[in-house]
Amino acid sequence: MSIVIFVNGAVILFAAVLMAADAALFPATAGVFLTAAVLAGAVGLFVMIATRSAKARLDRLHAFLLTASIWLVAGLVGALPLWVWALDPVDAIFEAMSGITTTGSTVMSGLDDTPRGILFWRALLQLLGGVGFVVTGMALLPMLRVGGMQLYRTESSEKGEKELRTAAAYALATLTIYLGLVLLAAITYWAGGMSPFDATTHAMTTLSTGGYSNYDASFGHFTSPFLQWSATLFMLAGGLPFVWYIRVYTRRTFHSEQVTAFLGSVAVVILLLTVWLAWADAVPLAVALRLVAFNVVSVVTTTGYATADYLTWGPVFAVAFFVLTPVGGCTGSTAGGAKAMRWLILFRAVKDRVRAINLPHGVFVTRYEGRAVSDDVLSGVVSFFFFYVLTVGVVAIILDFEGLDTLTALSAALTAVANVGPGVGEIVGPAGNFATLPDFAKSVLAFAMYAGRLEMLTVFVLFTPAFWRAL
Amino acid sequence: MSIVIFVNGAVILFAAVLMAADAALFPATAGVFLTAAVLAGAVGLFVMIATRSAKARLDRLHAFLLTASIWLVAGLVGALPLWVWALDPVDAIFEAMSGITTTGSTVMSGLDDTPRGILFWRALLQLLGGVGFVVTGMALLPMLRVGGMQLYRTESSEKGEKELRTAAAYALATLTIYLGLVLLAAITYWAGGMSPFDATTHAMTTLSTGGYSNYDASFGHFTSPFLQWSATLFMLAGGLPFVWYIRVYTRRTFHSEQVTAFLGSVAVVILLLTVWLAWADAVPLAVALRLVAFNVVSVVTTTGYATADYLTWGPVFAVAFFVLTPVGGCTGSTAGGAKAMRWLILFRAVKDRVRAINLPHGVFVTRYEGRAVSDDVLSGVVSFFFFYVLTVGVVAIILDFEGLDTLTALSAALTAVANVGPGVGEIVGPAGNFATLPDFAKSVLAFAMYAGRLEMLTVFVLFTPAFWRAL
Repeated sequence: MSIVIFVNGAVILFAAVLMAADAALFPATAGVFLTAAVLAGAVGLFVMIATRSAKARLDRLHAFLLTASIWLVAGLVGALPLWVWALDPVDAIFEAMSGITTTGSTVMSGLDDTPRGILFWRALLQLLGGVGFVVTGMALLPMLRVGGMQLYRTESSEKGEKELRTAAAYALATLTIYLGLVLLAAITYWAGGMSPFDATTHAMTTLSTGGYSNYDASFGHFTSPFLQWSATLFMLAGGLPFVWYIRVYTRRTFHSEQVTAFLGSVAVVILLLTVWLAWADAVPLAVALRLVAFNVVSVVTTTGYATADYLTWGPVFAVAFFVLTPVGGCTGSTAGGAKAMRWLILFRAVKDRVRAINLPHGVFVTRYEGRAVSDDVLSGVVSFFFFYVLTVGVVAIILDFEGLDTLTALSAALTAVANVGPGVGEIVGPAGNFATLPDFAKSVLAFAMYAGRLEMLTVFVLFTPAFWRAL
Repeated sequence: MSIVIFVNGAVILFAAVLMAADAALFPATAGVFLTAAVLAGAVGLFVMIATRSAKARLDRLHAFLLTASIWLVAGLVGALPLWVWALDPVDAIFEAMSGITTTGSTVMSGLDDTPRGILFWRALLQLLGGVGFVVTGMALLPMLRVGGMQLYRTESSEKGEKELRTAAAYALATLTIYLGLVLLAAITYWAGGMSPFDATTHAMTTLSTGGYSNYDASFGHFTSPFLQWSATLFMLAGGLPFVWYIRVYTRRTFHSEQVTAFLGSVAVVILLLTVWLAWADAVPLAVALRLVAFNVVSVVTTTGYATADYLTWGPVFAVAFFVLTPVGGCTGSTAGGAKAMRWLILFRAVKDRVRAINLPHGVFVTRYEGRAVSDDVLSGVVSFFFFYVLTVGVVAIILDFEGLDTLTALSAALTAVANVGPGVGEIVGPAGNFATLPDFAKSVLAFAMYAGRLEMLTVFVLFTPAFWRAL
């Protein structure tokens, strides 16, 4: 147990270092970040010293506890500077949790006049949350066998060794690609006319599929088609598996069932909605394509930038964006949602079921990326969808009790659990703001983002007595 | 193939006989029903004569075709008198399909002044649809292995023989119990103050969990608490498995996991909502209990009677009734929805999955009614939920394209696929009427009721080329 506490202490100390860096970079808010850094640094150091004799080995159940606690602690410590600065505690925690989970829902308004130190901190939370989730998704969740992620167990160990020898090299390659893409995006944004500060922060929140912007108008602040198209491509890049980039580089092949299915369906959806928007709202085709592509990619990759209030485009778009909210990107990316891998496995398992009806004595083995999907993986995928629907349902009901109308409640729950950001409806829509929600609703949504990011089961298993008995 | 056509001819002829009976009972609409009877009789006879040399044996794929076609033909021939009478074709088909699938959504208003012959026909469609579904659910779907119903394969053959010797005796027992309960309900309703006509027709639409009423105010026309409580109990009776009644009688035991889970959860929901209604809307507890019990049972058993516009009780109830819509009654009853059996299996499979996380080397066998649930059954249950969600989603999107707002579209889709009747929202709510919907929306909803009643896969499999190749 003490190793779990020790690592959390290290996380707090690391956060303190980042706060100090923020203070050094932005003098206007140096006081705020130094205060927070001293507080966090003291706590982090104290915790680490108190548990310094902890053993370095972790069993499976403690790995659960470690994963769940790190993300919670990161959200809380990330809230510290925001609280010291101006936000009340609930708002600060909501904002930080929305950041670290790369959700991107905000309770802050007047962003255009917010000090840069604060804006940078929000972007930094998303940058770290993004890479943190890639590591969690590819290393921890497969080990914990959450949501069918055990599918990647052999992939990240055996194949990993073949491809880049060691897991450490794998992690380093991931980090390099991630930061490389962030840098590329920053340069592109800057070349497209953004200030260096905007270019850097927006690059951080694009590749992490987080979606925090420095403006109340979100990415819509930038009207340049070049910038919007660039962001569309970089959001897509953030929604693709980082292992896939490595494989493209080492094996010189683009082949991946997940990536093909993901890009293919996104393309089809964009095409259909573009034609509809151009036809129904008489928007020029090129403009319609840009608007639709940006906003569909933003929702599907769970980034959550908006360039337009798509809810004013007509009811078809309200439904479309509602349906797209829980879809998600690829496993092994920074994106949230159910993920292309799970949809593929679910579709194929059901398809085999229908084939079995036509040929009752046939034997059908559901395959994914060329390998048979084990019953264990399949039941993991099914459990994921079960908890996904259950969590969204329970959160929506709680929000409804808090006075939200049914559609807003459902949409807010969906967008939080899938780590998207904006939803459908006046308050939670792309033109809305979560600030007006009651504190309790904000707390529930912050928890929903947290549970959604850890694919539910990692969090929910902590609420079973059997877990603590077995620990 | 010709046996399939022959049986459908027999169905049409049988409908003609019933139309003639309706004509004999209600002179005011005798002309309408005789016209329809002559038309249907001629078609039915012609079809039967043309295919009279058909072999009596059916293979599995033809059994699919038979099941799917009988329900479609029954809906179409049931629409005939309504069309001859006054409704336009789409309305007539909607109304008849809503009747035969025991959904109970109506496009007719001014029911209070509608001729009795028509009202009786509507009730008759539900009575037949109810028993038709019990037979389909316990004999055909298990054979077709649709939605995990193969679980009942052994039960309805092996155990059936033990209990009542033959399948025919089983069917006879079911019919006896069904008609016995209808008779009991009719007498109770009559004793409670209904006219003999109202008592009979409402008894028919109660036990079939259909929900057609002779009044625009639905069952709310009857303000007597005695009548409302009686209807609550008889709706519950219609939502319980008919095999269970036989088992209670032959084995003198009430034990059934499905029945216990169903009644238990209904009781808990009623209790919670009663307390909430009494507290939030300051309704006297006894009144609150009656209102809540009636309307919850009505939705959960997929009957769809209403005694009050529960949407005016507050947003909590809108959500509650929205959530309750797709739940459904027990397998082997007249009720629609996902059914208690499937929920139980899903919950237990997921629970075992969570247990497996705590004990990764443990082996967990999901059990239902004391027996292990095979992978085949489990994947059938999962496929059911998949097609359930998919059908509701696609129907909702189509309705949205037809101009309905998102909540209404979603709720109308849910209530049609689950064969409930009323939904949430102004048009499709308990105080609304489906008449104002566009024709295309009505057609889609009629199809949704049909697909929902046959548990989706029975219908959808007909759309796969492999089915027709294998036939």
